[in-house]
Amino acid sequence: MSERGRHLQFEVLFTAEGHNASKFRNDITVDLCGAHPRTDYLPSDEGVMHGGDGTAPYPLAYFTSGLTACIMTQLRAFSKRLRIHVTDIRVNTTCRWQAQQYGTEPYESQPDGFTLDITLDGDATVSDKKRLIACAAKGCFIEVALKPGVVKHRLRDGENWIELD
Amino acid sequence: MSERGRHLQFEVLFTAEGHNASKFRNDITVDLCGAHPRTDYLPSDEGVMHGGDGTAPYPLAYFTSGLTACIMTQLRAFSKRLRIHVTDIRVNTTCRWQAQQYGTEPYESQPDGFTLDITLDGDATVSDKKRLIACAAKGCFIEVALKPGVVKHRLRDGENWIELD
Repeated sequence: MSERGRHLQFEVLFTAEGHNASKFRNDITVDLCGAHPRTDYLPSDEGVMHGGDGTAPYPLAYFTSGLTACIMTQLRAFSKRLRIHVTDIRVNTTCRWQAQQYGTEPYESQPDGFTLDITLDGDATVSDKKRLIACAAKGCFIEVALKPGVVKHRLRDGENWIELD
Repeated sequence: MSERGRHLQFEVLFTAEGHNASKFRNDITVDLCGAHPRTDYLPSDEGVMHGGDGTAPYPLAYFTSGLTACIMTQLRAFSKRLRIHVTDIRVNTTCRWQAQQYGTEPYESQPDGFTLDITLDGDATVSDKKRLIACAAKGCFIEVALKPGVVKHRLRDGENWIELD
């Protein structure tokens, strides 16, 4: 056992099966693997103006929800571990991309910054809230897979926003 | 106009509003912004064994679906632009993470590789299928936001898989 206490390592594994027969509708089933599995049917589509039929959320809607949900989940989980008192959590997320296209070539895309504006209710100090967000960002499985610097965090402090990155 | 044809640049913007009142249920609404908006309600929860109530998909289920859907959508879109004949598209995705924890400290996570196993039906050559996947990867808004090297692609060729990275 090290100075930091017992070391624990664990794996998280999700798989998906997707099928597309013709237009932009993707039938997708996602499985959490392991001892406590769960299956969700999460199809996607493009809107009519983008050549689809609008029968399901856009792929990027799932991504944006996942990113928002992941940090919120870690804020809640780690507030308990760190004993930082938080009641309601509110996150406003903005995910912006740019795409470049020449003629009729396929376009190339790049992220133009994702911002997470975080409001933490409860009587924790600003310093503790900052510490909680820093821990949540390191534990968030989606954030840690993204290119460094793409995600920015801001903490609400009354009427102001504190930039954390 | 350059040699490559007319240059077009466009922006893609999604926003989300998330609220968590106590446990792990996150109520999340996602908006595609712009001329053709769309709103989806995409809540998340943790399973009962992870302290939640299992009322909605895990955050990472949304991420895994989004990644799968995004590449599938670009494969379909760019198959038309590149005139590469593809009928059914099937993608099997694996997203694996590792987390490290010391004592009761919050854990830190890292991606351990995401693989996209792609089957493209139709009479396109293997060479054209490879070119299509390379273009789709550069256009996929989620892949381009991920750390380089995290995503690996494989193309099915009869009974075999061709590693593309």
